[in-house]
Amino acid sequence: MSDCTFCDIVAGRAHGHVVYSDEYVVAFLDISPITSGHTLVVPRRHSSGLADLDPAIGGKIFAAGQRIAAAMRVGAVAADGVNLAMNDGRAASQTVFHSHLHVIPRHSGDKASFAKGLLTRRARDLDSVAAGLRAAIETVP
Amino acid sequence: MSDCTFCDIVAGRAHGHVVYSDEYVVAFLDISPITSGHTLVVPRRHSSGLADLDPAIGGKIFAAGQRIAAAMRVGAVAADGVNLAMNDGRAASQTVFHSHLHVIPRHSGDKASFAKGLLTRRARDLDSVAAGLRAAIETVP
Repeated sequence: MSDCTFCDIVAGRAHGHVVYSDEYVVAFLDISPITSGHTLVVPRRHSSGLADLDPAIGGKIFAAGQRIAAAMRVGAVAADGVNLAMNDGRAASQTVFHSHLHVIPRHSGDKASFAKGLLTRRARDLDSVAAGLRAAIETVP
Repeated sequence: MSDCTFCDIVAGRAHGHVVYSDEYVVAFLDISPITSGHTLVVPRRHSSGLADLDPAIGGKIFAAGQRIAAAMRVGAVAADGVNLAMNDGRAASQTVFHSHLHVIPRHSGDKASFAKGLLTRRARDLDSVAAGLRAAIETVP
């Protein structure tokens, strides 16, 4: 194991609920989701934040987030909207220092449960959520 | 004027505090900033959300956001961190239906003022903030 959990997931040394991967990025469920389906997209190559992230790889991260967002809308997650977010630096609430894009499914009228999720961040049924999301991602371009 | 305020800013038909532009994107200050320096990056070509945004252009938006974030750290904004966020769909708090990436400077210990900014979203000194940010953007790659 390295001292970076996300590098360990990328390398397969640690378990992650991986929903998507390609040559540049790996996406897996957040183990403390704000909403069910909350996914993180990370670059395969370690970068701690925006300052050391190759902008071309940043574009690949964004494109993967866009595809996953589309899958969240059509698949089992049945999202009505999606938040994409990258927090850069401790002052911006970054807690894991391997760059990651949050892809967070939202549902109409979920503001109260979203706020509760921000506080509790409790995981439920990650295996089945991951299976549903993986299936949906295969159906979107 | 069109029925899209952001298209009007892109085309120069409406005033925006533009801090950056290139072939693909235009970035200007949010007129109701959560924190001072809060910037929006928008594609020149209209897209209402992620579903009709060309992923290649999404990558350009992200790259511009990354550059602006770097400028926020080194320039007058003197950010300690930056949040990048794109809200897709009304359920995810999207209010203007021309895709846009929020680039929000953060400072250590600003959680209370950030929360207040989310509620009040009051603009101050946009002209001078824009001038400072434009100058800083020219200094970063």
